[in-house]
Amino acid sequence: MLFKLLLISILLGALKANADPLPSWHDGEARTRIIDFVTNVTTPGEAYVPPAERIAVFDNDGTLWAEQPLYFQLQFALDRVPAVVADNPALAKTPPFNSVLKHDREAMAAFGHKEIAQILLQTHSGMTTDEFADVVNAWIDTARHPGTDRPYTEMVYQPMLELLAFLQLSGFKTYIVSGGGVAFMRTFSERVYGIPPEQVIGSSVQVEYTEVEGQPRLIRKPGLSFIDDKEGKPVAINLHIGRIPILAFGNSDGDLQMLKWADRCGENCLIGIVHHNDAEREWAYDRDSHIGRLDKALDAAGERRWLVVDMKSDWLTVFPR
Amino acid sequence: MLFKLLLISILLGALKANADPLPSWHDGEARTRIIDFVTNVTTPGEAYVPPAERIAVFDNDGTLWAEQPLYFQLQFALDRVPAVVADNPALAKTPPFNSVLKHDREAMAAFGHKEIAQILLQTHSGMTTDEFADVVNAWIDTARHPGTDRPYTEMVYQPMLELLAFLQLSGFKTYIVSGGGVAFMRTFSERVYGIPPEQVIGSSVQVEYTEVEGQPRLIRKPGLSFIDDKEGKPVAINLHIGRIPILAFGNSDGDLQMLKWADRCGENCLIGIVHHNDAEREWAYDRDSHIGRLDKALDAAGERRWLVVDMKSDWLTVFPR
Repeated sequence: MLFKLLLISILLGALKANADPLPSWHDGEARTRIIDFVTNVTTPGEAYVPPAERIAVFDNDGTLWAEQPLYFQLQFALDRVPAVVADNPALAKTPPFNSVLKHDREAMAAFGHKEIAQILLQTHSGMTTDEFADVVNAWIDTARHPGTDRPYTEMVYQPMLELLAFLQLSGFKTYIVSGGGVAFMRTFSERVYGIPPEQVIGSSVQVEYTEVEGQPRLIRKPGLSFIDDKEGKPVAINLHIGRIPILAFGNSDGDLQMLKWADRCGENCLIGIVHHNDAEREWAYDRDSHIGRLDKALDAAGERRWLVVDMKSDWLTVFPR
Repeated sequence: MLFKLLLISILLGALKANADPLPSWHDGEARTRIIDFVTNVTTPGEAYVPPAERIAVFDNDGTLWAEQPLYFQLQFALDRVPAVVADNPALAKTPPFNSVLKHDREAMAAFGHKEIAQILLQTHSGMTTDEFADVVNAWIDTARHPGTDRPYTEMVYQPMLELLAFLQLSGFKTYIVSGGGVAFMRTFSERVYGIPPEQVIGSSVQVEYTEVEGQPRLIRKPGLSFIDDKEGKPVAINLHIGRIPILAFGNSDGDLQMLKWADRCGENCLIGIVHHNDAEREWAYDRDSHIGRLDKALDAAGERRWLVVDMKSDWLTVFPR
């Protein structure tokens, strides 16, 4: 009898713990809508969705981890410029690489799409896929965010980590669908987000198959293959997943088409936007921002009753402690 | 689906009873090598592979289902020509569509890559992704193989269905990696092979995002986006999965690069080729065949000790009864 009571109290404790799967979320509307949605689609009834169809998609930059003062992958590219120039000395005197080498902040601030694309392509190519993974791993293990001095893999949002784990434990297949490079994100997606490589969808460079002494190699080339942003996101979801997600989270206009694509199931889907309005603990930016502009998608959120997560008031914690 | 569930429940029973998981395979070297491999990678020890890394890739045409007298998807395209011409009457007098409409066998036999590509693109585009799935479903539910009068979904290989189910029950994630169209294969991959849409990789047409009265649509365009054949297969495996498979099966030179790509793990991987040498129960063709030519990959199989499955002697049954 004593044992039985003990077991019941342990189980009750577990149930209680299960009742709050989102400890870093303020006990308000956002948390309630998420828990209600997950409860509804996992409980037999009208809104029930079989596990195989529980597809959840998340943007990465600004949705799962921070994106200020500049996209972390762009910081990786800038950090890699010296190594690329060492391999190809002619670049030392060529724009935009010369400005990066000289830390010419004025010139760098004036970089447009063309210069950034040049830097991204040169620093992300010219080696095998295995070698690139090694290069990214070496960077991510040592690089630190200029503002917080934390490793970039700790610049992730604790409430979103809890949401990912909650969904994974509830039978969801969680995907990243990001404008970031797929090979870049795969180096940390599994250990940081619990998202395996086959569930990471992103932008990609051209990759060429070749053989060296009969051994196959995949070589990354300095050309874009796919940009997984805006209209590209639903296209990529269709190509890679072939199902319509029932949950989608983004934070910027680059996610608008993905959010609309997932918003096709009435009460049986949840569409969310992370709104950066916490200048004290993170950053505050939306309609006028150069990085992560949130303008049209914020209007759409109002019209379509999407869940706008207010970082300042909905999140008790922003980054992992 | 019912058939698949039945097969899995029979196999579960067989595994539980310690019986043969591959009842349609002759008790010979092929069956032994498969069972030894699966046992080794799932049993704690030197060859053990964690479930997350148990990736198995299969070609489709000629590996999981038949491909004679012509690729089934090409038959679908030919069957769809009248509907395409009805929508676009100008095509009725234009080659190669006029030859198809007139059933001009001589002209059709002379079709080259250009004519076949034209027919494939015109019959696979000009509608939304949802509409295309409906069109394929309607065809696959009614069309019959010209030689056997069976539905195409019954022109699958019973021993390969057993292998797929055996791997799935052993913690493998099974993928199709085929030159066939990804949207075409997804209509039946789950119910026939137990392979969900997100684990189907194939060739694809260009897809364009648009909105009609605020509702998102993906429109299939008459242009190729990716050919998942030869060098394309390792490229696609890297892009979609991001891991190196530990088991790969193909049947033709179009699979050679994929088989080499997977053949990187010594005793811990299994590379197999289905050899069509059974003119009585299926078809017999290899080095000189127009469809499914198996020449260089057969040489490689000998050099690299890949498993060549001899359809005639290794399989007790070819098609499901």
